[in-house]
Amino acid sequence: MKLLNVDSVSGAKDKLSHYFADLSLDHEEIDTCASLGRVAAADIISPVPLPEFQRATVDGYALHAKDTFGVSDSLPVFLELIGKVEMGEVTQLTVSSEQAVYVPTGGMIPKGADAMVMLEYVEQMDTGTIAVHRPSAPGENVIMRGEDLKEGTCIIKKGRRIKPSDIGALAGAGIARIKVFEKIRVAVISTGDEIVDPFGSVPLGKIRDINTYALANMVTEAGGIVTFKGVLADDFQGLKDQLLSLLPDNHILIISGGSSVGQKDVTAQVIDSLGPPGVFVHGVAVKPGKPTIIGRAGDTALFGLPGHPVSAIIIFKIFIETLMNQMTCHKGRENISLMAIADANIHAAPGKETYQPVLIEKEDGHNLAKPIHGKSGAISLMTRADGYVRIEQNKEGIKKGEIVQVTLL
Amino acid sequence: MKLLNVDSVSGAKDKLSHYFADLSLDHEEIDTCASLGRVAAADIISPVPLPEFQRATVDGYALHAKDTFGVSDSLPVFLELIGKVEMGEVTQLTVSSEQAVYVPTGGMIPKGADAMVMLEYVEQMDTGTIAVHRPSAPGENVIMRGEDLKEGTCIIKKGRRIKPSDIGALAGAGIARIKVFEKIRVAVISTGDEIVDPFGSVPLGKIRDINTYALANMVTEAGGIVTFKGVLADDFQGLKDQLLSLLPDNHILIISGGSSVGQKDVTAQVIDSLGPPGVFVHGVAVKPGKPTIIGRAGDTALFGLPGHPVSAIIIFKIFIETLMNQMTCHKGRENISLMAIADANIHAAPGKETYQPVLIEKEDGHNLAKPIHGKSGAISLMTRADGYVRIEQNKEGIKKGEIVQVTLL
Repeated sequence: MKLLNVDSVSGAKDKLSHYFADLSLDHEEIDTCASLGRVAAADIISPVPLPEFQRATVDGYALHAKDTFGVSDSLPVFLELIGKVEMGEVTQLTVSSEQAVYVPTGGMIPKGADAMVMLEYVEQMDTGTIAVHRPSAPGENVIMRGEDLKEGTCIIKKGRRIKPSDIGALAGAGIARIKVFEKIRVAVISTGDEIVDPFGSVPLGKIRDINTYALANMVTEAGGIVTFKGVLADDFQGLKDQLLSLLPDNHILIISGGSSVGQKDVTAQVIDSLGPPGVFVHGVAVKPGKPTIIGRAGDTALFGLPGHPVSAIIIFKIFIETLMNQMTCHKGRENISLMAIADANIHAAPGKETYQPVLIEKEDGHNLAKPIHGKSGAISLMTRADGYVRIEQNKEGIKKGEIVQVTLL
Repeated sequence: MKLLNVDSVSGAKDKLSHYFADLSLDHEEIDTCASLGRVAAADIISPVPLPEFQRATVDGYALHAKDTFGVSDSLPVFLELIGKVEMGEVTQLTVSSEQAVYVPTGGMIPKGADAMVMLEYVEQMDTGTIAVHRPSAPGENVIMRGEDLKEGTCIIKKGRRIKPSDIGALAGAGIARIKVFEKIRVAVISTGDEIVDPFGSVPLGKIRDINTYALANMVTEAGGIVTFKGVLADDFQGLKDQLLSLLPDNHILIISGGSSVGQKDVTAQVIDSLGPPGVFVHGVAVKPGKPTIIGRAGDTALFGLPGHPVSAIIIFKIFIETLMNQMTCHKGRENISLMAIADANIHAAPGKETYQPVLIEKEDGHNLAKPIHGKSGAISLMTRADGYVRIEQNKEGIKKGEIVQVTLL
């Protein structure tokens, strides 16, 4: 076994990005309608301008804006009403100066007109004449061809996770199918002779498997697909055989547990036995989560996570979600975190980057971050937490009243 | 048709909560493993304490804490090593004063012992004796029976949307199935003679349907199920027949479009024709989204949304998501919003509650909220927005540099 030093979190992230830089995902073309939450594998360009023709954004009259300059209630302008645009129909009308045409919201603006005046500022004098009581500026109440999206503009950037409004925009541009990254395939394993299936009978001394269930659902939430989920004994050969059979079909294998000294060695030794480069992070200066292992075999990333649920969940957020985002070129919502005011002093672990679970409460329109304490084996800590606060490795801690950034869980 | 005044947003929300107070959802029992994102229909109580026995949180020796008081590297205490606990096994050992037992992480603490001292602070002198170099306090490195969750404690409160760590906690307590609310059934309709299926051929003058696609995916994201999606013409009888056929099987019908004067009337008239109480909100003092209609027929909620995509999306967030949360007793993440600094002045519409789409950028560790402007027909505004800022009805606007709350989209 190689001797490895404990890495800082940023050091481990650098190695992650270096060792997995060439891991790539296949692309697949899917229906736009089925793309919610998927990640775009290429920039998506609009083949058409949006809208495709100049449209009214209000009910009213299309006219020459300059005809209305200076008009008012007491000094209206009279225009010749030459016709009406039917909703959804092409109009052949042309509006000359001192003329107007009725256009409903969404209707096509006839040639010549450069503004719409709203219905409520117009009085119809007779079938062929209107009085306009309000001036309008060129472009007012009109959406120009391509004003929303120009033809050839990028609608969705590569790496974006598709939101509902994105699907609306793709529909608006008539794009029926899009290229997305295949879902990242992940196997989630708990090890430990004491860990048993949670829904069967549990002899005293055994512990129900928590991590497989929490981690598998984190994979799903992060957009991955769980191909295998199970508890394995802490046996070198058994674990090795299982991992070997999972390698070809998975991008990521997560092995949690093995938090006792003997078990920790088995996970690292098995990863090292699968082929180069093996384990390249063995221990991270982070609290909680120090006994974290990261390695690679073939084109598969392997993570050995601590057995304590809180540690496993936080390490997943720090490293595995980061890798999943890296593989899909997705920026994540890392650049969006919640600002809150620390409601109590938060202590940092000396020499370690510290992740403190917090609850968010609102007070006088501000977010308060309340640290939640408990042993890292306590899953109830995570069900109560809204997120966590990160304290850098060399910071002493956070004082009550300081503004902190909360990453939501 | 009844004459109705324009409501304020809070007035309309009060009506929403009043008129729909009795709408209820059925419960269904599902596998815990399949419950991610579902909403708990009842408090979920742990039938067991977690952990079920006193466990070690480190590798080391179980002992009487008081035996170690005052010890140090230069003044260790010698204890009789009486045995070892096997991982996952029940131990029959009892630790008396001046005795110790080896216990691996997660292993059962033998009777009598009240603390663990970590392996690294202990020297094994011979097979029957250890020297302890570090004092430990009672309870140190031990997780007590029920310390994580007491038997009979509520793990998940009614109305909670199930997160990955919740599934972990439920697994930890051995709860295989849980009661959740049935998914809210929603039909999404676009109306307008100009609106056509976005993926077919589009004659000039027609507009591709955006709203159905954006809104249907918002329903999915909010945990509902879309039972019907389609474009209907603006014809009173046709729309009425379609809505009548959708009423029995849906909790919510969303009709968007019909933003021109004539079309708006059709939607309201059709809702009124379906039976009492009919339309009870007809126009809201909000920007964007003024021509919003809310009504009820039988046990179904009906929403008439503006045709402009930005308006439709924001009105969905304000009213429909609120109703969906109300029906599932879910608090939503309304109490968690993002604090940011306004990067520019934001103008409010006089006499209206204003919702301004914003982009979030990070600068010097702070979130900047950059207002994005554009016409409310422009879907690209929403694809660029990370969220929106709400300005109350009687506030003049927001000044650059003010701290604002951003609701994420």
